[in-house]
Amino acid sequence: MRIDILTLFPDMFQGPFSESIIKRAVEQGSVEIVLHDIRDYSRDKHKQVDDYPFGGGAGMVMQIEPIAAVIEQLKSERSYDEIMYMSPDGQRLNQGIVNQLSLKDNMIILCGHYKGVDQRIRDHYITREISIGDYVLTGGELAAAVVVDSLVRLIPGVISDETSALSDSFQDNLLAPPVYTRPAEFNGWRVPDILLSGHQAKIDQWREDQALARTKKLRPDLLDEGEGEKG
Amino acid sequence: MRIDILTLFPDMFQGPFSESIIKRAVEQGSVEIVLHDIRDYSRDKHKQVDDYPFGGGAGMVMQIEPIAAVIEQLKSERSYDEIMYMSPDGQRLNQGIVNQLSLKDNMIILCGHYKGVDQRIRDHYITREISIGDYVLTGGELAAAVVVDSLVRLIPGVISDETSALSDSFQDNLLAPPVYTRPAEFNGWRVPDILLSGHQAKIDQWREDQALARTKKLRPDLLDEGEGEKG
Repeated sequence: MRIDILTLFPDMFQGPFSESIIKRAVEQGSVEIVLHDIRDYSRDKHKQVDDYPFGGGAGMVMQIEPIAAVIEQLKSERSYDEIMYMSPDGQRLNQGIVNQLSLKDNMIILCGHYKGVDQRIRDHYITREISIGDYVLTGGELAAAVVVDSLVRLIPGVISDETSALSDSFQDNLLAPPVYTRPAEFNGWRVPDILLSGHQAKIDQWREDQALARTKKLRPDLLDEGEGEKG
Repeated sequence: MRIDILTLFPDMFQGPFSESIIKRAVEQGSVEIVLHDIRDYSRDKHKQVDDYPFGGGAGMVMQIEPIAAVIEQLKSERSYDEIMYMSPDGQRLNQGIVNQLSLKDNMIILCGHYKGVDQRIRDHYITREISIGDYVLTGGELAAAVVVDSLVRLIPGVISDETSALSDSFQDNLLAPPVYTRPAEFNGWRVPDILLSGHQAKIDQWREDQALARTKKLRPDLLDEGEGEKG
């Protein structure tokens, strides 16, 4: 998998991409992540990449020309499955979309900033607009990092068996059951007896019950979705 | 505002917190962000902070002791409005919650990793569990960065007037209208004539119509929410 990220702030990705799982995935060759500074594609002598919005109003708008230049350059080098734009008015990301994206080969992710990108970029280049949630961020960089993190960990071989993604929340439309580890007692707070019992079948049943109860209480909508998909 | 972040991977925050708006907010003293490496609070000679789950199964669990030690230490120094845990089964973050959080003084954000933290931490210390969306990440660090970014930009004086948060998506239950900037024509693609007309009242009306049309098409649920709040 290759992911090209177009951004005005490539340094934002320094921490997220040089730690933990993403670093491991890059090192083992499971994913290639290439950062492109949009400013490098500005043909303006001051390297300007944004300008005032037509029609007036607050905020700056990212110009079409430098972004179009990067995208055209990349498309001339290889074909892309998706050219994504991170935006609060995009399709809301969920685990199902993450699963789909984890099967793609080449993707471009465009990070907006300020009031966003010129609409013509969205109309003519973008194949998919994604929002990580109903809130506004300074820019698309953290959102892009979230997308990359969520999908890279699903590439086979990236996370080890013992942190298997299959027992995560959402993969079966259930929240995960509570987890406990040593010590069995801390500050007078004890681990549930069942988990110390050694009866694996009963433990499995308890976990299933807990997952279902927690989902019913906190996210009943997930149970409806699960039924919808089956029916 | 002071935000204490408890994490096993403090370097993850390097890029996100040293760029752009968050950096500016820290420099101007609007927010103090303190990173705590949970590993420093392990009393184990190998600095172990996780262990196998009681009852068996895949994945490691973050131990109660080092996390309790950091939290007790911090609570002895000042009072906290919220002790938050980033988790996919938490309350789903939205702009309303962000607005609320931006009014708090002191907050702790605990970032989970692996299969999560010992449930007793959640039962006895955590005041609020937050999810940034229905997908699973490697850990809570990116989620915490998202929360910090979303709320820091709402602190008065952090973003300048011209990027005023008031015209963002979600603040009025509407998605933002499309934006355009120079050049007026690129590759044969023209900016809508109305935006070049100079009739400010007509432009404002066009934007309102576009915002409403876009919301109706992409996120009709937001319009229902708006009515619900009024009614």
